[in-house]
Parts: sequence; C-alpha cells; structure tokens
Amino acid sequence: MSEILTSREQDYAQWYNDLVLKGGLADYSAVRGCMVIKPHGYALWENMQAQLDKMFKETGHQNAYFPLFIPKGYLSKEAAHVDGFAKECAVVTHYRLKNDPNGSGVIVDPDAKLEEELIVRPTSETIIWSTYKNWVQSYRDLPLLINQWANVVRWEMRTRLFLRTAEFLWQEGHTAHATKDEAVAETRQMLDVYAKFAEEYMALPVIRGVKTANERFAGAEDTYCIEALMQDGKALQAGTSHFLGQNFAKAFDVTFTDKDNKIDHVWATSWGVSTRLVGALVMAHSDDDGLVLPPKLAPLQVVIVPIYNKDAAAREKIDNTATVIKKELEAKGIRVKYDNDDNTRPGWKFAEYELRGIPVRIALGARDMENKQAEVARRDTKEKKAYSLDGLTENIAQLLEDIQNNMFAKALDYRNEHITKADNWDDFVKILDEKGGFVAAHWDGTGETEDKIKEMTKATIRCIPLDNEQEEGKCILTGNPSGQRVLFARAY
Amino acid sequence: MSEILTSREQDYAQWYNDLVLKGGLADYSAVRGCMVIKPHGYALWENMQAQLDKMFKETGHQNAYFPLFIPKGYLSKEAAHVDGFAKECAVVTHYRLKNDPNGSGVIVDPDAKLEEELIVRPTSETIIWSTYKNWVQSYRDLPLLINQWANVVRWEMRTRLFLRTAEFLWQEGHTAHATKDEAVAETRQMLDVYAKFAEEYMALPVIRGVKTANERFAGAEDTYCIEALMQDGKALQAGTSHFLGQNFAKAFDVTFTDKDNKIDHVWATSWGVSTRLVGALVMAHSDDDGLVLPPKLAPLQVVIVPIYNKDAAAREKIDNTATVIKKELEAKGIRVKYDNDDNTRPGWKFAEYELRGIPVRIALGARDMENKQAEVARRDTKEKKAYSLDGLTENIAQLLEDIQNNMFAKALDYRNEHITKADNWDDFVKILDEKGGFVAAHWDGTGETEDKIKEMTKATIRCIPLDNEQEEGKCILTGNPSGQRVLFARAY
Repeated sequence: MSEILTSREQDYAQWYNDLVLKGGLADYSAVRGCMVIKPHGYALWENMQAQLDKMFKETGHQNAYFPLFIPKGYLSKEAAHVDGFAKECAVVTHYRLKNDPNGSGVIVDPDAKLEEELIVRPTSETIIWSTYKNWVQSYRDLPLLINQWANVVRWEMRTRLFLRTAEFLWQEGHTAHATKDEAVAETRQMLDVYAKFAEEYMALPVIRGVKTANERFAGAEDTYCIEALMQDGKALQAGTSHFLGQNFAKAFDVTFTDKDNKIDHVWATSWGVSTRLVGALVMAHSDDDGLVLPPKLAPLQVVIVPIYNKDAAAREKIDNTATVIKKELEAKGIRVKYDNDDNTRPGWKFAEYELRGIPVRIALGARDMENKQAEVARRDTKEKKAYSLDGLTENIAQLLEDIQNNMFAKALDYRNEHITKADNWDDFVKILDEKGGFVAAHWDGTGETEDKIKEMTKATIRCIPLDNEQEEGKCILTGNPSGQRVLFARAY
Repeated sequence: MSEILTSREQDYAQWYNDLVLKGGLADYSAVRGCMVIKPHGYALWENMQAQLDKMFKETGHQNAYFPLFIPKGYLSKEAAHVDGFAKECAVVTHYRLKNDPNGSGVIVDPDAKLEEELIVRPTSETIIWSTYKNWVQSYRDLPLLINQWANVVRWEMRTRLFLRTAEFLWQEGHTAHATKDEAVAETRQMLDVYAKFAEEYMALPVIRGVKTANERFAGAEDTYCIEALMQDGKALQAGTSHFLGQNFAKAFDVTFTDKDNKIDHVWATSWGVSTRLVGALVMAHSDDDGLVLPPKLAPLQVVIVPIYNKDAAAREKIDNTATVIKKELEAKGIRVKYDNDDNTRPGWKFAEYELRGIPVRIALGARDMENKQAEVARRDTKEKKAYSLDGLTENIAQLLEDIQNNMFAKALDYRNEHITKADNWDDFVKILDEKGGFVAAHWDGTGETEDKIKEMTKATIRCIPLDNEQEEGKCILTGNPSGQRVLFARAY
C-alpha cells in the first residue's frame, strides 16, 4: 500500500495531500480555494462536533444561528477588527441573474445591485453584537452564553485542504457578561475545554498560552490559544479563545443596567475551532501507510475481515462467528463493520482499512476457527496478535483504550522532545532549521523584534505559555532584558 | 398571558409572528430577509436534525459537505434548472475590500473582481454533480447515497420568519444510481422517511403525493411531496423528494460502465427539508397562549415549579422532592428543568412556560407535600390534575406519550375534516373562501387550467395523492374529462 502515498520523509506536504485525497477525507472543488469534505472526513468532523457540542452544553452554552451575511458597514464599526479582517472576503453586490440577451447563459442583472454590499461572514462578532443590542437591557439578561455551528469564508490566496481553505466549517462561541472577571473566566474556561478535547479525544497534546499583541485576534484584548506540534516539527494553532473586553459592546452600543442601577457596556468573549482540526489530526498521528485515527473519534473503530477458503462449512462458521462478534461489539457501543464483500480480497481490504485509519482490524480464517481465536491488528503500532474468542469483546474494548492512550503518549513524547531552549541566535536558527519544533527563547517584548525574527526565520511566537516560568534573560535577537522565555516555531 | 399574543381569530398571520418572536424562536436581523434563530428555536431544529439524521443513516446515507459557492456558469448547464432557480440569488462579484481613500469606512476593491461570478447556493445539484463526475466510473461506485446539512440562500422578496427567508438551513440528499428503478425507489423511500418523521415526531399528519408538472422542482422528472394543513386552513409543503432522471448526469457528463461493460448516464434523486418545518410545527399545533410542542421534539419536556410559602421547612421539603423527581425523570431520558429561581413568581413562570410550549408542568407546594402529590398540567389540553408522588415518573413518561398521540390525533381530525370534495366551480370557490383546507376536485390535467385556477382563486394543486382513487369526472373549471380528483389549496 505504501506506494500509493508519498512518504513523509520524501515530501511531507505531498504526503499530507495524498493522504487527505486518497484516505477519502476531502477533494478539491471547482470553486477556487473551496474543498469538498467527503463522507469519511465529514464523519470525523461530526464526531468532533458531537463531543465539543456536549462539552459546550455541559458548561451552560446554547446553540443559535445568525445570518451568513454581514452589512459592509458593520465591519468598520470596530476599528481593529476591520483592519484584521475586512480585506479578503467574499462580497455580494447583486441579488439577481438574468438570461443573457446576447447568448445562451445567464448574466448578473445590473438592475439588481444592492444598496449596501453584503460580506459573507469571515467571523460573526459584528452581526452577533448588533443583535445582542436588542437582547440585553439589564444584568438579569446576562450572561448570554451562545455558540453557533456555521460555515465562514476568508479569501485565502494560498489554500491547503482542511488547514487553510476559503470556506471552512467551525463553531464560534460569543458570550456577553456583566463583569470583566466573569468574561476573563469564560475565556479561560473555554480554552480549557479545547485543551481537554484536543488531549482526551484527538490524542493531541497542546500547550495553553496567550498570544502576543502582534498575533492577537482583530478586536481582542487578549487571545488565548492551544498550540500543537505536527510530525514535521511545525506548530499548528488548534483553537483560540478571545477576551474582547468592551470593544464590541462599545462599537455596537450594547449596554446594561447593573444591580446598582448604573449603566455600563457589556463584556465579551469569543472562541472557535474549525475543520482545521481534521488536518491537525491527520498530521499529528498518521504514517506512510495511511491515516491513524484515535479510537474516540474514528468513524469506524473496528473492522472484521473474513479470510475465506473454499470450504463452505468453514465459511459459514466464519460468517456466524463474525456476526456474533459484531453484535457483541455493537452492544458495547463500539462502531464496527463486518466487511464480507466477496469482490475484493483480504489483502486489498487490509491495505484499504489501514489507509483509512481504522484503529482495530479483526481477521477470521478457517484456522482461527479451529483454534478458537482471531487475528487482531492495531493500526497505531501495526502489531498483530492472536486473541482468544473467549473474552474477545472486552479485550477489544480495552485495546481501543490502549490505542487512544498510546497515541497520546507517543505524540506527547515527540512534542516534549521538541521543545528546545536556545540562548543565542545561532542556536536559535539552527534548531529551527535542523530539529524543528518549539524553541523556548527570551524575547524583549516588542512587536518590532517579533516582526524582525519572523522576517529572518519565518518563525513566530506561538504563545507565552500559561503559568510560564519567570526567568531573567536576554532577548535572542536584541540582547535586551527579558523576564521569561516564549515559544517560537514555524507554523501552519 | 393571552394578552401578549394577538389571537388566531383576530389575525392569524400576526399571531404567528408574535409567537415566533415572543416564544423565543427567532428574531429579525439587520440583513434583509435573513433571520436570527434564537436558542429555543435552534434547539427545536437540533432535535429535528438529530432524528432525521438518524433516519437517513439507518437508510444507508452518509453526510458530506460541498462548497457554499457555485460558479455562475454551472447554473445554466441544466436548462430547466436555470429557469427555475437562477433568477433570485446572492451573487459574489468581488473578493476584497479596502479602506475608503475618501472616508473612514471600507469600500469594495475594484481590482478584486472575480473573473466568473459565484452564486451563493440556492440548492446544490450543480456543484454536487460536477463533483460526482470524478467519483463515478463503474457500477461498483454506485449507489452514492449522500446527504448534506447546510445553509442556502434564495433572494425572496416577501419573507416570513421560518416559512420563507432569504437564508435558511436545510438538508439536501443527493443520490446517484445505476438504474432508473433504483432511483425511483430511493425517491419514494425518502418521501416515506419524511412522512414518518412528520407524523411520528412532529405529530403532523401529511398527505403523500406527486406534484403536477407546473409545480415540479426545476430539473426534476417527478417531484414527490408531503403536504400538511395549518390551523388557518392553508396548506404547507413540508418536504420534497425529486426523481431527477438523467438530467443532471447529462448536464455534467456523469457516466458509468455497467456490469455488461456498457456506458450509460447515472440516475439521480434529491430530497430536502428545511427550517421551514419549525414554522409548520408552530402553525399546526400552537394556541393563543403560546407554543404547543410535541414532546418528542420539545427542547424541554417537563418543568418543575416550586410554590414556596414562608415556612423554611416546607421549602426544604419541596426542594428535596423536586430534586428527586428531576433525577428520576432524567434517568428515564426525559429532558427536565427545575426552575427554583426566586426572582420570578410561580404565576409568571407558568405563563412563560406555556408561551414556550413545555409539554408538562409539575407544580409542588406545601399542601402537595402533605398530600404526597404534585399538580401536573399538560400544555396541549391545559388540563390540570393531582398526581400521586408514588409512581410519578412512570405516569409522567406515559403522559408525554399521551400528549404526543393526542396532538397527532387532534391535527389529524382537523385535517380530515378539511378535505372537502367540490363538484362545481361555485362550491369550489366557496369552500376555499369560507372553510379552507384541501379541496378535492377534478382537473383536466393541463397546465393552462391549473394556471387559470391559481390566478382566479390563489389555490394551487398541492399534489396528486399517491394511491389516489381513480374516478371519472369533469374538470372543475373547463368541464373537460378527468380520471381522478387532485388536491387544491391555498398554501404557504
């Protein structure tokens, strides 16, 4: 099977693209920068959604839905926001087509020009805060704890499947609070939700941190993030949670009367993760034979493949056994498929399910029947082992847990080995070029230095970790004094 | 509470609008024709989605996601399709804004004009079939059974919350088959899924039928539908399932090699329901005091309201009892809230939960504690009854079932009473004007007559019911011979 994918060593970027396409996750579309999410990829996203949605609801949030379109003028109401976002976006200028009088096709009807253009939402702060204005009068109306699952569009010039596409799917939480403390606590809570989801479900270790001013969300006072490491040593921002202060409340004039009858602007947060997480999942765990998916999110957790010979009685026995195993696994809530399709051979199936990342494969042949056992292969380590049919279901359930834990442990080891301290410029550049990963280095705290380092090395400050060790040092570039190390990396 | 809603008799349209707004289902937005779906309305939609999605998966379908944008030229590839759809839609012409050199805002960057305009999808047949071309080569690739949950935009001039909005949420199934028979069977299967969902979950009786050529989906060979009746006697199309023949396969050149090695075009279906169903649910069941929601879809099924007096011991007893009841109901999978908010009085809560359509309310006061009972009110009939605390949970579970069944029975009675035969023009018009509902009448089978009747009465042919009785008669308008009655109605 390995020949169908470019290997990671050969060309990591090509390996990723091959894998997304051939693993059945996504496809290119006829629309520049937009992708088609195929059933296997969408099922992964659905499993992510289901778990995140549960966690959002457990923390008191409700879902709602706001318009796809944003009046152009809204974008410029929050000054920092327009600078960060308004540039590259899809603009709706007309609302009608008509038959081409000079041909057979259709043309835009010049009589159907909108008075004010509409922007396809790149994010929804403005349209949501213009709505919150009508929903909030008193402290009794607060907090508003609302999330939206939606598509958004940012007109990216260079796109990559899942990681950076013009349209993508995401969730965006938008909350409104009576006090700054409450809003900050919400921002941090949602960062923790994201970190827990990444680590416990995606098996993806993340560093929780805060962004520098340069890297902050347009309109935020503080942007918190979770940062993960991919197998090529590049970092990937896996989720962000923003404390927005009173910026959007001021821009849209959202005020409330507090308990003491004083009027104040409302405090805000927003937070989001997107289909980018599917790309992160692929990059963090997969290998040259295909996808490696964590059992908790894998659309299929177990596949049973029969190894038939010509003996009809043996065949029937295999069928019956497989059917029983399938039922028992399903009764345990395990997602399982019995693939008894006669048109493809076991070897082809093995390779196909490896490519698709199914965590556990059970093969059943005539000899297995005689020995009352099954051949069980785990996708993460590719280890194969005979399991007794006695207690098989319990052991498979345990194996799925082991795989989940092993994938996290492996990714954590790799990540921890790739946080390297650098104390001078040469080491800094060398680590970035040769080893990759995060480089923990002192920085003088200025945006100018940050920009310069980015220009010279393409590395950005991924975050200042929460609970960062305070330590005197000198900026890696300027030598100016610094009170702590920050994490640099090249990133997706 | 009734004073906060216009009554149905007074002004049905206004009643509906009041109810959607005040019942917390939706709100107007700053964008013309687009609505905000509020948490209570979105939770209803989520419950509908969850059940439909389950039914789609049980019938072998998978979810996927296709781009929001459609290249303008795609729309004109299927001739009938462009006539039906291309007229009123949101057109993206530019991909960038820039700071206004003459002011403080942003303007559309004239240098960022798209070579070919993009249409925000009004439906996705064209973009999906352009993709299927790459996915289908052989009969082994068929059938493709794919569904998409998405937002779509149709630039409607007259909009109504949920019933007709420029942007709405829906699902659209798009399947590809090797034979005509299989595609027709799929079309009918999905119609049955919709009918089952409407009747068993929405408590909404529907008539399954086929549309006349005039009312067919643009590009379909046959459009099947489920038609429901609202309380004002107007019909509402609640879902459609289209047999598309080979029209889209031909437009996008999607062919396959069959088992005999012959090349043929693929057969297609598409089918969809939308957030319009939320409007249908409201209109079919609710009353002058607020929403009446079927228990199977109600975001909250039971609310417990304590009636405190000044005695702290009694209060504690009420609290403890309520907490136990809540836990027991939750253990049975019932969605329940204990509303012990001290800031609002029981009477206010009663009215609020009636407005929001919570199927069952349990009130607990000091005297109830003494008598070991609870006062239980059902929303559908507004009947109140004392229930013993012994066996309360089982009885509430049974009551929820009774409410679901009673709502369906009531709507079915109303619907059946509102299918009236008319055998001459005067009766036909009189029934439409005075009684409303469906009028079963003979029609000569021509589009001209259909158009004329619509023009004269605003009634359209809602459908030709499946398994319709064959009966000789004369067209209600022209007197020409007819082999069966069809169902006319004024409709949403």
